[in-house]
Amino acid sequence: MSHNEQILFANEAFYLAFRARDLAAMDAVWDRQGPVCCVHPGWRPINDRDGVMESWKGIFTSDGEHEVRSAQVRLTQHAEVALVTCYELLATSHLVATNMFVRREGGWRMIHHHASACFAGRPIDDAAGPPMQ
Amino acid sequence: MSHNEQILFANEAFYLAFRARDLAAMDAVWDRQGPVCCVHPGWRPINDRDGVMESWKGIFTSDGEHEVRSAQVRLTQHAEVALVTCYELLATSHLVATNMFVRREGGWRMIHHHASACFAGRPIDDAAGPPMQ
Repeated sequence: MSHNEQILFANEAFYLAFRARDLAAMDAVWDRQGPVCCVHPGWRPINDRDGVMESWKGIFTSDGEHEVRSAQVRLTQHAEVALVTCYELLATSHLVATNMFVRREGGWRMIHHHASACFAGRPIDDAAGPPMQ
Repeated sequence: MSHNEQILFANEAFYLAFRARDLAAMDAVWDRQGPVCCVHPGWRPINDRDGVMESWKGIFTSDGEHEVRSAQVRLTQHAEVALVTCYELLATSHLVATNMFVRREGGWRMIHHHASACFAGRPIDDAAGPPMQ
């Protein structure tokens, strides 16, 4: 796979783990070698890895929507770091996400996720992500 | 200045331009050599530089709050790219921001800004930024 394909693969692995409520898969997505940060919609930033995983555990066991999928994925690579922006499409709402990945041995790992509500009209679903599971 | 100082300087230059409603200063903050992206709170991502500057022009001439300042600034450098997260403190609300910068000749330039509402309690103002002007 090219770097772009690897980065998009990592981004989709994140949404796949989210949809599947798979904590082990989500854990594998996030980097272990440096600082990470996660900003859930409306939340404070979580700046420690344990706290980030704890937050996903809480989200995965909540009644919230999990049928999220990415759309209009945009990727910019800067050497060992990649910036991905996309929409997160839920059943009745949509968010905007900033996702950052760092290149590690074995693939690209998430170091930053910032998702927030988008109040502009629903974007076109360009099916950039895999079909819903 | 060290790289960290230069990056924090660039981050503060962004908030200074914002507070001063200074479009020329804001223009100087943003990179000209590669893709940029700006996500204002609730907006769609703006992925072209002209669109980003047009959005700031609209914001600067609006009645919205401009007395924003940064707090609890966190910085991670990855070679030529830097990730800064911070709160944006307004008079009666606060946002969370993800800011990315790339190293260019002459300094660090903004390539990404994502700001969104934070509904958790108001963070401590640690006066990381300069005093309000």
